[in-house]
Amino acid sequence: MLHRPIITLTTDFGYNDPFAGVMKAVILKINPDANIIDLTHGIKPHDIRDAAFTIGMNYEYFPAHTIHIVVVDPGVGSNRRPIIVMTDRHFFIGPDNGVFSYIYTMNHETLQVLNITAEHYFLSSESATFQGRDVFAPTAAYISRGINILNFGDVITDYQTIKLPSTEIIGEKSLRGEVIHIDRFGNAITNIRSSDIDMIYSSNPKGNIDVSLNNMKIPLKNYYAEVKDKGLYSLVNSSGYLEIFVYRGNAALENKISAGDTVEIALAEKPV
Amino acid sequence: MLHRPIITLTTDFGYNDPFAGVMKAVILKINPDANIIDLTHGIKPHDIRDAAFTIGMNYEYFPAHTIHIVVVDPGVGSNRRPIIVMTDRHFFIGPDNGVFSYIYTMNHETLQVLNITAEHYFLSSESATFQGRDVFAPTAAYISRGINILNFGDVITDYQTIKLPSTEIIGEKSLRGEVIHIDRFGNAITNIRSSDIDMIYSSNPKGNIDVSLNNMKIPLKNYYAEVKDKGLYSLVNSSGYLEIFVYRGNAALENKISAGDTVEIALAEKPV
Amino acid sequence: MLHRPIITLTTDFGYNDPFAGVMKAVILKINPDANIIDLTHGIKPHDIRDAAFTIGMNYEYFPAHTIHIVVVDPGVGSNRRPIIVMTDRHFFIGPDNGVFSYIYTMNHETLQVLNITAEHYFLSSESATFQGRDVFAPTAAYISRGINILNFGDVITDYQTIKLPSTEIIGEKSLRGEVIHIDRFGNAITNIRSSDIDMIYSSNPKGNIDVSLNNMKIPLKNYYAEVKDKGLYSLVNSSGYLEIFVYRGNAALENKISAGDTVEIALAEKPV
Repeated sequence: MLHRPIITLTTDFGYNDPFAGVMKAVILKINPDANIIDLTHGIKPHDIRDAAFTIGMNYEYFPAHTIHIVVVDPGVGSNRRPIIVMTDRHFFIGPDNGVFSYIYTMNHETLQVLNITAEHYFLSSESATFQGRDVFAPTAAYISRGINILNFGDVITDYQTIKLPSTEIIGEKSLRGEVIHIDRFGNAITNIRSSDIDMIYSSNPKGNIDVSLNNMKIPLKNYYAEVKDKGLYSLVNSSGYLEIFVYRGNAALENKISAGDTVEIALAEKPV
Repeated sequence: MLHRPIITLTTDFGYNDPFAGVMKAVILKINPDANIIDLTHGIKPHDIRDAAFTIGMNYEYFPAHTIHIVVVDPGVGSNRRPIIVMTDRHFFIGPDNGVFSYIYTMNHETLQVLNITAEHYFLSSESATFQGRDVFAPTAAYISRGINILNFGDVITDYQTIKLPSTEIIGEKSLRGEVIHIDRFGNAITNIRSSDIDMIYSSNPKGNIDVSLNNMKIPLKNYYAEVKDKGLYSLVNSSGYLEIFVYRGNAALENKISAGDTVEIALAEKPV
Repeated sequence: MLHRPIITLTTDFGYNDPFAGVMKAVILKINPDANIIDLTHGIKPHDIRDAAFTIGMNYEYFPAHTIHIVVVDPGVGSNRRPIIVMTDRHFFIGPDNGVFSYIYTMNHETLQVLNITAEHYFLSSESATFQGRDVFAPTAAYISRGINILNFGDVITDYQTIKLPSTEIIGEKSLRGEVIHIDRFGNAITNIRSSDIDMIYSSNPKGNIDVSLNNMKIPLKNYYAEVKDKGLYSLVNSSGYLEIFVYRGNAALENKISAGDTVEIALAEKPV
């Protein structure tokens, strides 16, 4: 444990309500030394897939032993279980609704999932509609104080996963994926990894890659400022994913790109 | 006092301007150990009633001795007074414009209100338009360092309150309230408490409760995921208030509900 | 150095993506004691001028030795340089694209600018599109641990500045400026300083000042609540700049004011 244990928050609470602030209150009442960091509260309401992507792509930047709370939880109050996920380096706390699906698919030396049932750790005024405050925040705070996670409930193996958008090889030299997230700048992030691009290249290392969005050709660049016009371009972004952008523009708004749109990469035909 | 005293911020500053960041700067210059927590900066501009509701419903989740700054202050620069409110467990700092009206109505062992006048604690570059930075932030920072509040000014008893939306008993078996807040998810929170519902029930414990919004019947549920269709439903939320929702939808947007709309609860008529 | 060194963030990342959270992760991995404060993440995408204004007007409220990271960086990945600016009291880290232009024009006892080139301090997974995470965050974290800035690269003197909106004297008794920022409340902040107003007054201390926006007369007041009607008024704001407002209204929206609009001050003609 660090001197000041880190607890991160990833939610769909937005910024106009006091929900995140109240979770911090509950945490600090239990562990005044907690260092609480907002990853984001801007997940679209109820968008479990986007939350899964956000925590999955970003948790590794945090120090070992960080505790990550994720609250995108339309099923709160039902019999969906509150869980703790422990890998060899991080803790994750949230609802068992698939929000940790990316975490499950990654390589960890160890991976253990527990169903949180130890109610004596919960906030006494427990409600049916805000387990972020009543269950997840206190659980994180007690873990940050060194309470062993085995005290919170039993190990389970039937935790829920959601179907993550997958890429599909559609020929020896091409691969199909999709747009999975639109960011603040209107950049359209796909689920095609730099390793996918390398694989296509490997069939002809001297060739070029064609990127296409909804069957429209999109040139591949290395960084945003490499182009000066307002056309659509693509690059491998800072997370290692293919991304479609307009330099100093908003690619998604200007071109009506949205999550789910088809993106393909293929080895370029030789020019005639 | 905790090792790291907590100061919370509740304002209508939004997130696109540096106002809240500058208040934190002023606090940290006076007390580098302060642990500053945003409750929210998303109060609607100048909405004193919503700010009063937000701090009133949520301050108790914070540890004892927390110092709460509230800045929703359209009268800044006028002769409205800057005040400190001290209860037996918390401090509140802000303008004397009714923003602490809920705090005043609650049960506290002690409640003391002071008019802040000790200008030697203020920021030297004091302006007429940003007392959050020039008066409230330094006052909070010095209190967090242990300065006795009696040093900041004189006790007053004529502090301002605003008319809070009240519920009205409209018959032996029914009660009228109103929508007081729309949250991020489009849920419409009313001023009808779970204790109000209990009171109606008490006249016939075997009966059912009818909830109605603008004379439209709204079934009462226990949690969001209890329903699957997109109709309007109600429940008692995590703050103990009656709330109207659409499961995985936006009740307020889809049904044009807004603050001030009438909500009634009544003992259900027996079915014929 | 303080016990907990302060690092501030000013970006155009908004709040719906995890970019700022990931920068905090990188900082805390290097220096767990860093106290990271958001100045704002709401700079308009790619608006270097607004970022320059925001950090320039507000950094001095922070304690000495604060480290300010500014990331508004449309040229990321190109050959624009990452830099450190050190004054006698503060550090600034960001792209060499003019974002520190206000800092350069201010009076400092010392001012030194370095080109960051010491790649061994960078995040190992360095990308071409997110130097905020890969270069600026680790540089700030290492400086906060006491690493001398001379270890990060060479001193440069040809750093970039952008043209800042200037005021123009348009006669013995009048001065022309412009609107440079619209804030959350719809207030239109100009680049006319209180010292400019004093200068006009000095030609006739008994006179009055006329403020005009796009040739429309705007009365000058001392604070917002001084007026009760919904007309346009002006005052000298908490940063010392002339600002145009509507009391409890949104001046910019209601009157279609935007950055770049012309504002003039002049000694009032004597009434006939």
